[in-house]
Amino acid sequence: MNIVDLIIKKRDGGKLTKEEIDFFIKGVTDSSIPDYQISAMLMAIYFQNLDSEETSELTLAMADSGSTFDLSSVEGIKVDKHSTGGVADTTTLILAPLVASCGVPVVKMSGRGLGFSGGTLDKLESIPGFRIDVTEEQALRFAKTSGIVLMSQTDSLTPADKKLYALRDVTGTVENIPLISGSIMSKKIAAGADAIVLDVKCGSGAFMKDYDSAVCLAETMADIGRSVGKEVTAVISSMDQPLGMNIGNSLEVIEAIEILKGNVGGDLLEVALTLGAYMLMSAKKVSSEAEGKAMLLENIKNGKGLDKFRELLIQQGGNPGIIEDYSLLPLSPEKTEVLADADGYVHSMNTAEIGRASLETGAGRASKADSIDFGAGIIMKVRIGDTVKKGDAIAEIYSASKEKCLSAAGYLKDAVVIKSEKPKAPKLILDIIK
Amino acid sequence: MNIVDLIIKKRDGGKLTKEEIDFFIKGVTDSSIPDYQISAMLMAIYFQNLDSEETSELTLAMADSGSTFDLSSVEGIKVDKHSTGGVADTTTLILAPLVASCGVPVVKMSGRGLGFSGGTLDKLESIPGFRIDVTEEQALRFAKTSGIVLMSQTDSLTPADKKLYALRDVTGTVENIPLISGSIMSKKIAAGADAIVLDVKCGSGAFMKDYDSAVCLAETMADIGRSVGKEVTAVISSMDQPLGMNIGNSLEVIEAIEILKGNVGGDLLEVALTLGAYMLMSAKKVSSEAEGKAMLLENIKNGKGLDKFRELLIQQGGNPGIIEDYSLLPLSPEKTEVLADADGYVHSMNTAEIGRASLETGAGRASKADSIDFGAGIIMKVRIGDTVKKGDAIAEIYSASKEKCLSAAGYLKDAVVIKSEKPKAPKLILDIIK
Repeated sequence: MNIVDLIIKKRDGGKLTKEEIDFFIKGVTDSSIPDYQISAMLMAIYFQNLDSEETSELTLAMADSGSTFDLSSVEGIKVDKHSTGGVADTTTLILAPLVASCGVPVVKMSGRGLGFSGGTLDKLESIPGFRIDVTEEQALRFAKTSGIVLMSQTDSLTPADKKLYALRDVTGTVENIPLISGSIMSKKIAAGADAIVLDVKCGSGAFMKDYDSAVCLAETMADIGRSVGKEVTAVISSMDQPLGMNIGNSLEVIEAIEILKGNVGGDLLEVALTLGAYMLMSAKKVSSEAEGKAMLLENIKNGKGLDKFRELLIQQGGNPGIIEDYSLLPLSPEKTEVLADADGYVHSMNTAEIGRASLETGAGRASKADSIDFGAGIIMKVRIGDTVKKGDAIAEIYSASKEKCLSAAGYLKDAVVIKSEKPKAPKLILDIIK
Repeated sequence: MNIVDLIIKKRDGGKLTKEEIDFFIKGVTDSSIPDYQISAMLMAIYFQNLDSEETSELTLAMADSGSTFDLSSVEGIKVDKHSTGGVADTTTLILAPLVASCGVPVVKMSGRGLGFSGGTLDKLESIPGFRIDVTEEQALRFAKTSGIVLMSQTDSLTPADKKLYALRDVTGTVENIPLISGSIMSKKIAAGADAIVLDVKCGSGAFMKDYDSAVCLAETMADIGRSVGKEVTAVISSMDQPLGMNIGNSLEVIEAIEILKGNVGGDLLEVALTLGAYMLMSAKKVSSEAEGKAMLLENIKNGKGLDKFRELLIQQGGNPGIIEDYSLLPLSPEKTEVLADADGYVHSMNTAEIGRASLETGAGRASKADSIDFGAGIIMKVRIGDTVKKGDAIAEIYSASKEKCLSAAGYLKDAVVIKSEKPKAPKLILDIIK
């Protein structure tokens, strides 16, 4: 088999066979195919796409390219969760302990990634002492005792995906649904869960800007799951405004704890309950979304969710004192308020620009080498549809320096649009795809 | 400027500016852009194409990427010639001495390339003693004394084209008219001629299978020429059957000499006269194609063309004795005749398959590392429209071994189609584009 023939076949719109895809991924993994041929193939795929069979084969080949995590010794149906990423999206810190407190083991590996604020790993690392580097042996022990593990991906997982992702990032071939789906699903399959619940974000702050692309991505990932006998549920949820009120790392930890304490609700809780309910359904704990949500809400009320979160912190070395005393978490010293410059309704938000503001505070990473300021971020004070008066605070910005605060404030002010007419209330959960 | 942004711009159908193209070619030349980004850009160009301005800018940037050949000290209008390549196409060996014998200096650099039989350089090297590695100083001296130089490209010419061509060859991005045009024209521009006559082949044995693609390639190259003030004429000629009767290296040298002696004519002479006439017109020696052809034919009749060929051989170390004694040229020992298996007309030929037969004899190179058997090849005995009787020889095959002869015979037999109905006579010169 010759890689040039395969590139030309795909370039001309042909369908690659399982053998050809296996040959390609083997060559990616062992570096027998040079990067310049891999990137030519990726660009050909960008233009000609992969059909559902090719996408499944690619995903499986990537999942098998390194070690896989065997969770079979952990009792019960293991359900994993993945979000395509958005602003103020800290659902994992809420639903993982809640679902685990319902008796469904949650073993979740995360990558670091780049983004407006940190990923789940960064948020966890903002908790003094918390360790995300857990060995497979430890993870299995934790899964059997507490039923919850939040950890970083092991180095040996899906090396082909790591190589392809790094090349896509520098060759203009990121934005392709089969490749995005394959990248996400290969890691989820290698991570060993029986069922997967996906949160596919859609809107101005998400990678998928429109509903149709989000549905296409969700269906592609669900197809891949089906092809390997894993139940996949995808929730399409809105990212037309930040999901929670807090954006940042320690700030998002605080909001998650407040929700687990039952002190606050809102869209972040609603999405966490929806995703959590489908996780419970996948694990056969409940038979409807409503039943699932009720079970999760009950475990907020009775404190079992918060107890599981405390158990997680203790298990992985984090200081459980933060639950009662938020001052044990980092908070950046400089604070700036962003004020409304007119009376009216909060009409819309450019969520990507709010994310950009978060990046300016130091809460996120623009490139892999950047370090994160765990205490930096933004507390939003308004949501779409709220009325404001000129001079009201629409956000508080926390950062290490006044300059960063002001830079973030500039982005934020432009991102929040105030108009005199009342806007249509945005829909939060747009679709459920199974 | 960031290469990823440029790849994405082209991927999304954007137009690259002169500055962006210069940045790209500079990065290709000095290796500051890694191969995997170059190949992603090439595949994006394959799908989104370059418009005529982008193509010209790319060509000029490539022409300027290395040393250029300054022919200004050679008197007169210097005219270069290029063929896109076909089977039994040895026009250069005929027209270069003929045109030079009319007082128009011909300084022609060739590359080796891959193909069904050797390129001009290989044909010349089949002549005992002939040296194609000529320095720039020697070339200028020859141009001033004999008015003819046939030489290999210098290493320092168009390094960006060399790099891009090598990458295109292994990344499925060869078949793109702007990239093909840029590759050819950058070398011609760097080689310093004032005017260029192109032979764009079209048909079953050519890279461009159909008339429209051939015209598009010709017009693209003419556009590039115009953009740098070089007169470009493109002849579109048929490659629906081998151009001459001999295919191979020494065999094609023999046919060229026979034509220069006035012993044979046919399509090969006709294309050589047409191209040569336009070279004379570009050099302002004649004012019409007919006048040009008459001048060239006169120099066949009076022997001046053959004398110039002899001068070329002596000047570059070749044995001029081959002109009178073909047995001084290599000829492979094994000979096989291919016989017609039915009565009828030669209805059509799959010229690419005849080329493949030539490759089987050892006359060409399938990969750069292959060596050529200068004495191998095929003598065709028929042309389209000829009547044959079952058992008549349609071709003679020469090769180093019986096995190679038989393998070539297999391809050849399939390639020559004999039918009872008389075919339409194929047109030889399809178009002239100026």
